[in-house]
Amino acid sequence: MEAAARVIARRGVRGLRVEELAAEAGVSTALIYYHFKDRAGILRRTLEFINDRAERYTTERDADAEPLTPRQELERTLLLELQDDPVVRENSTAWGELRASAIFDPDLREDLARATLVWVQEISELLGQVRPMATVTTLATSAERLTLLVEGISMRWLSGILPLEHARELMLDAVDAELGRLERR
Amino acid sequence: MEAAARVIARRGVRGLRVEELAAEAGVSTALIYYHFKDRAGILRRTLEFINDRAERYTTERDADAEPLTPRQELERTLLLELQDDPVVRENSTAWGELRASAIFDPDLREDLARATLVWVQEISELLGQVRPMATVTTLATSAERLTLLVEGISMRWLSGILPLEHARELMLDAVDAELGRLERR
Repeated sequence: MEAAARVIARRGVRGLRVEELAAEAGVSTALIYYHFKDRAGILRRTLEFINDRAERYTTERDADAEPLTPRQELERTLLLELQDDPVVRENSTAWGELRASAIFDPDLREDLARATLVWVQEISELLGQVRPMATVTTLATSAERLTLLVEGISMRWLSGILPLEHARELMLDAVDAELGRLERR
Repeated sequence: MEAAARVIARRGVRGLRVEELAAEAGVSTALIYYHFKDRAGILRRTLEFINDRAERYTTERDADAEPLTPRQELERTLLLELQDDPVVRENSTAWGELRASAIFDPDLREDLARATLVWVQEISELLGQVRPMATVTTLATSAERLTLLVEGISMRWLSGILPLEHARELMLDAVDAELGRLERR
C-alpha cells in the first residue's frame, strides 16, 4: 500500500503501471493481481490506505502530553494536514491525484464521497465541542468549508506557490472566522 | 491552444504527448515545435491561455445588462468559476493539472504564482469596492482565502462528489462571511 501511494503521488492515477508498483513494492505483478484483483481494486485500497494514514497523523497524540482544549484539538487536527513531512506531502498529493481521476472516471466517486463525508463529520464534531450551542446544519457547513479550504491550501502549498507558514496562518484565521460565525448564529 | 487545454484536461501534464496534441489541433508536430520551441513552452503558453479564458468568462457582461452593485459583481465573478459549462470544466481541470505538475517539476511555479497573484488582486479589488474602509492587508487575506476556496470547491465539484447547487451556496456563504469580517475590522 505504501508503494501504491508513492507511485500514485509520483505518476498520477493515469501513470500508474502495475509493473512499476510491483518493482516498488518488491513483489511480483501476479501477487498484486492476486491481492487486488484489478486496477480498480488497487485504487480503492490505496484510497482507503491514505485515508487511514491521514486519520492517524492528524489525530495521534503523545500519551503523556497535556490534554488539549476543544479549540486546540480542532486547530491541531487541521494544521497537521499542513506539515513539511514526506508522508503528509505524499498522502495529500496522492489524494489530489485520486480525486482528479474521478473527473473522467466515476469508479472512485463513491469511495471519495464517503471518505470526504467521514472527514467533514470528524471536523464537524470537533467544531461542535467548541460551539455546543450551534446547530448540526451550521456545524456541517462550517466543517465542509474548512475541509474544502484545507484541500485548496494543500494543493497550492504542495505545488510550491504558497509558503507553509502562510498556509498555516490562513488556516488558523479561517478557523477563527468559522468559530465566530457559529457563535453569532 | 484550445487543443492543448483539452489534452491537458483529459490526460494531465504527464500524459501530454505532442503527437496527440498535433492530431487534436490538426497540425504537424513540426509546427508545434516551431511555435512553442519545447514542451515547457507548450505548458507555459497553455497556462496563459487558460488564465485569459477564465478572465474572459468570469468578467464578460452583456453590454445592455443592468449595472451590478460591487457585491453582485464580486459574487458573480466567483460563481462564474462554478458553471456547468464544458469550457469552464475543461479550464478548471487543466488548471488543476498544471498546478499539480508543479509539485514535482518547478518549471511552471513562477507562472503559476504570478497567475494566482493576479487573480487574488482582482478579487481583492472587488472586495475593496464593497468594503472601502478595509485595509489592503485584510482585503488581500480575504481574497486569498476566497480563491483557495474556489479551487477546493472546483476540484470537489469536478470530481463529481459536490453537487453544483451546493457548491455555489458554499461559495456565497463564504463571501458573506468574508464581507462580515472585513466590516468588523
